[in-house]
Amino acid sequence: MSDETPLSHAISLADVEAAAATIAAHVARTPLVAAPRLSDRLGARLSLKLETLQATGSFKERGAANRLAALDADERARGVVAMSAGNHAQAVAYHAQRLGVPATIVMPASTPLVKVENTRGYGANVVLVGETLSESETEAHRLEAEQGLVFVHPYDDPLVMAGQGTIALEMLAEAPDLDMLVVPIGGGGLISGIAVAAKALRPQIRIVGVEARLYPSMHNALTGESLAVGGASLAEGIAVKNAGRLAIPIVRDLVETIVVVDEPEIERAVNLSATLLRTMAEGAGAAGLAAMLARPDLFAGQRVGVVLCGGNIDARLLASVMVRELERDERIVSFRITSDDRPGLLGRVASRLGALGANILEVSHGRLYLDVPAKGVTVDVTVETRDAAHTRQIFAALAEDGYAPMRIDPRGLSQATTGL
Amino acid sequence: MSDETPLSHAISLADVEAAAATIAAHVARTPLVAAPRLSDRLGARLSLKLETLQATGSFKERGAANRLAALDADERARGVVAMSAGNHAQAVAYHAQRLGVPATIVMPASTPLVKVENTRGYGANVVLVGETLSESETEAHRLEAEQGLVFVHPYDDPLVMAGQGTIALEMLAEAPDLDMLVVPIGGGGLISGIAVAAKALRPQIRIVGVEARLYPSMHNALTGESLAVGGASLAEGIAVKNAGRLAIPIVRDLVETIVVVDEPEIERAVNLSATLLRTMAEGAGAAGLAAMLARPDLFAGQRVGVVLCGGNIDARLLASVMVRELERDERIVSFRITSDDRPGLLGRVASRLGALGANILEVSHGRLYLDVPAKGVTVDVTVETRDAAHTRQIFAALAEDGYAPMRIDPRGLSQATTGL
Repeated sequence: MSDETPLSHAISLADVEAAAATIAAHVARTPLVAAPRLSDRLGARLSLKLETLQATGSFKERGAANRLAALDADERARGVVAMSAGNHAQAVAYHAQRLGVPATIVMPASTPLVKVENTRGYGANVVLVGETLSESETEAHRLEAEQGLVFVHPYDDPLVMAGQGTIALEMLAEAPDLDMLVVPIGGGGLISGIAVAAKALRPQIRIVGVEARLYPSMHNALTGESLAVGGASLAEGIAVKNAGRLAIPIVRDLVETIVVVDEPEIERAVNLSATLLRTMAEGAGAAGLAAMLARPDLFAGQRVGVVLCGGNIDARLLASVMVRELERDERIVSFRITSDDRPGLLGRVASRLGALGANILEVSHGRLYLDVPAKGVTVDVTVETRDAAHTRQIFAALAEDGYAPMRIDPRGLSQATTGL
Repeated sequence: MSDETPLSHAISLADVEAAAATIAAHVARTPLVAAPRLSDRLGARLSLKLETLQATGSFKERGAANRLAALDADERARGVVAMSAGNHAQAVAYHAQRLGVPATIVMPASTPLVKVENTRGYGANVVLVGETLSESETEAHRLEAEQGLVFVHPYDDPLVMAGQGTIALEMLAEAPDLDMLVVPIGGGGLISGIAVAAKALRPQIRIVGVEARLYPSMHNALTGESLAVGGASLAEGIAVKNAGRLAIPIVRDLVETIVVVDEPEIERAVNLSATLLRTMAEGAGAAGLAAMLARPDLFAGQRVGVVLCGGNIDARLLASVMVRELERDERIVSFRITSDDRPGLLGRVASRLGALGANILEVSHGRLYLDVPAKGVTVDVTVETRDAAHTRQIFAALAEDGYAPMRIDPRGLSQATTGL
């Protein structure tokens, strides 16, 4: 990708600096933290920008606050409309409420209730219309025309892009010697704001973008390829079908490369953030870490600034990600023992597991399943072990005792019982 | 509690300042963050010190690093020994490894494997001896004597206390106008270090301690009462049976009051940290927020600095805390429908729930339970609703349709089915 050609860009460093002054009193200056254990794990010297600590849990407030501040008195009175099922919805609703501007948020009808209620909680008028985001967007534009509302685009707007770019000013003020910045790409508002500011302040810095394999929209826009776009991603915050019109030339000129990450890498990144930073990152929020897992060669030994851009992950989803990681390492395993209904079976198995050094996490006992002979009883046990070798040792010991344990595979959709 | 009487105290501001210089290069200067939504919720102006972002996830590194730095060459060669099943173990192991000092950590035999493995992961020699922490401590002192190791106490040591006090220096440097500090009390090392430093720098600041109702050790030591001490607390990091000998006079002189918090408040505090700060706090780590929930009158309108002192909470436990909170709000409810085995039952119920605006989270279907008549089938459904009123509306509609839903109570140990 070529050198900077500012004349073709929607925003400049001056726009980002103006945004910083505009939003300073309204948006958190989030901490940039070192992460020694994560740095060791990933083989680079990390500085993490915790946008998870914004009031509504994501960087989207920066762009929204900057856009809302530019409304004139008439526009403030009429109000704004936005389309989003996620972080942009909450950011617009929160800052509109603070400014006393009426906000209407159009969300797809299928939006999870928690997100709807969170957005309503900020005083927004939530309208549930459309099967898809694109149908919701049509409705938002209809309301824009009908009611004279100002449409606040989630990324394809110079004021929004400049707002997101303020992250780069803060990062370089605290860590002026960063070699690289790693930034997730959805529509491209975040990375284009950051790239314009960072490259102007520190021309030798390298900007790396991250897209989910299921949504390589910017990759397609830049290369002319047409990789498939769509599907359910853990990183729904960057699951955007069309790259921003204004972002494309900036990314083409200023971003060194785009790393495309797979779902398992996104999942591992979410887990790393939770276990090594005690920070809840959503899939899109952890995408920068996923890129470092995917392409360690790009980052080895470098001073890398990572934007942990959002933290709005469902608690149950996070727990499932974390438990799956332990399962993948075979430190949590489930298995089924089927027996005729001898009294005391559970007690004997539990004692044996204790002696073998396994921690019992869950037991379900005494259910009659259809596929078990009459009077048969099954005990499903989930245990925590030291590691995969310990797990194998425990299974071997149980088999020797005649319990014939059958592994319950956590990865299947159904409980695919397979012998060991 | 009376005025400061420094001569009776084990440490002074100068000791804390010396500790700050000693540990500066080894321990993170953690961020102090504003928390607008949490402030609104709790009715005070909060500044949160995120000790969760220390490499091993808790403030314990400060004291450990300061203590280890004071070892002489002989002591470094022989090594250290500590007794802990938790954050102190990881802190000592981590900093001993960095300094090349051999570390032996004695843990009770029942310590969860994950904690054992984490501590081993820092290169420590982990010895599993004792049914209780007190038996483990006996073993640690035996190793101290036998092998000439230096015993690193988790709190009753002036260098450890001074190390923990560095938190106050950092908080007041960034927020010099704080009215109050809220600090959890286990053995009292953290609060005594903080109180000495903060009261010396800002005499008008008020220090509030927090103990778990199950472990009011410092309260007992100061009042002469003998409230019961013991039991399983979510805040196991402050579940300490004996208040530190050196901490008692400092707390008596410098701490304004001790708030004793109940388990449900600790649980709500952990949930608030996760949902409004996207920060994983363990029970003890969130105890300061629990105190604000317990005694809003103490904090109303004040500038309150809260030490979020640790983040080492098990993922499954955190998820269960968060889901229980939704259940408590009746935004997640489970119920059972029992029917003769008519095909299509699940489909009809699912469609009906969708039309009623409930999100289906989990379904278990088709199991034959012993308490269901032959050929009967049960469907257990967990749904997410807008709020408690919406839940009641959904149950009423299902009952009208003849599905006779039975509520599954999440709070019981067994599934206590009760009609509505």
